[in-house]
Amino acid sequence: MSSLEARLQRLEDQVAILAVVAAYGPAVDSGSAGVAAELFTQDGVYDVSPTPLVGAAAVAEMVDSPGHQGLIGRGCAHLQGIPQIAVEGDTAVAVNHSVVLLKTPDGFDVWRVAANRWELRRTPEGWKVARRVNRLLDGDPGAAALLRL
Amino acid sequence: MSSLEARLQRLEDQVAILAVVAAYGPAVDSGSAGVAAELFTQDGVYDVSPTPLVGAAAVAEMVDSPGHQGLIGRGCAHLQGIPQIAVEGDTAVAVNHSVVLLKTPDGFDVWRVAANRWELRRTPEGWKVARRVNRLLDGDPGAAALLRL
Amino acid sequence: MSSLEARLQRLEDQVAILAVVAAYGPAVDSGSAGVAAELFTQDGVYDVSPTPLVGAAAVAEMVDSPGHQGLIGRGCAHLQGIPQIAVEGDTAVAVNHSVVLLKTPDGFDVWRVAANRWELRRTPEGWKVARRVNRLLDGDPGAAALLRL
Repeated sequence: MSSLEARLQRLEDQVAILAVVAAYGPAVDSGSAGVAAELFTQDGVYDVSPTPLVGAAAVAEMVDSPGHQGLIGRGCAHLQGIPQIAVEGDTAVAVNHSVVLLKTPDGFDVWRVAANRWELRRTPEGWKVARRVNRLLDGDPGAAALLRL
Repeated sequence: MSSLEARLQRLEDQVAILAVVAAYGPAVDSGSAGVAAELFTQDGVYDVSPTPLVGAAAVAEMVDSPGHQGLIGRGCAHLQGIPQIAVEGDTAVAVNHSVVLLKTPDGFDVWRVAANRWELRRTPEGWKVARRVNRLLDGDPGAAALLRL
Repeated sequence: MSSLEARLQRLEDQVAILAVVAAYGPAVDSGSAGVAAELFTQDGVYDVSPTPLVGAAAVAEMVDSPGHQGLIGRGCAHLQGIPQIAVEGDTAVAVNHSVVLLKTPDGFDVWRVAANRWELRRTPEGWKVARRVNRLLDGDPGAAALLRL
């Protein structure tokens, strides 16, 4: 691989991983269960409180669940902070903040603000999430530590 | 066009469209009416409630309007979520969230949270917005559906 | 330098500067004083109210200060809006919004929303911040003007 191609590949990886992170919020806020699930590897884990989602199918089930559909019906936005990304061969780690906003009668509330660590894998279908850990930034030192790349 | 150049072009398109989306908020929050207008094609439409803005000149007029100047005078921030971008030749679609924050006596309120679909066109002056649809995420299924790329 | 390489370099600069901006929040919210300091040149200035931080070491001291540690202990998130970036040779300017969210008993408050102008320099260790100006978007025309690239 030429030096130019290696540099190009590094940029492509960064931009592709940014796109994976960017895709999560629009997928879940539009109720696109299949799109959200396909961001993960089949055995991917979304380690979120109180119950981790194990397997891509569990992510789809979460989107289709009454709880999540209730958020969409009320009006919600799952926003992602700009991720910091470190690629090493066919794996990568990204860390960022995430924010969930919920409609109220006269505006929106900031409901959840969390730290995220994304572990990604290069697959024949592009970069996918093998594991995402999400913890509320409520003063828990373990949550804050997730933001160290 | 060589394979390397085609890959480079794809990255340039992604980064250029990200820059168009990133430019909107700083332009309107600094009262830069001309900068905001130039993000759109001359016949571009910003389909926002309650009154769509038709033509780049209408975007400039909105920025200069007493309503918008009042927001700036109070303190406001038009934030953009990281867009998901799909380019096809000389057109592209991007979807993202947008958030408007407003100063209050003791902090800031989350005033508006919306879904956006941006339709962009490659022009001799770079990528421009031909149409942007913005709908409040207040539970309206049509608003949520805008987030499907 | 070939035309392809020049185009690649331009993209690398954009992506690298995006990464510098993205790194600030996770660094300070995880108490990583050294990481936050290394984003700045040794004589870099973070011009923030009420007391500008002069030198990278002052940024580290701010992260380690009781005031900032108190924010982490309560739960906080320093979010960055997508920056607009203009590179010229070995210097660059980026402008964006920043938002600080703080934990409350029943959610999170939007504590600070600011305009930022980042002046960056290409160094042997990559792009670093020579000066970052941050002003609260509270209606102050000088703060809003910072958002003009």
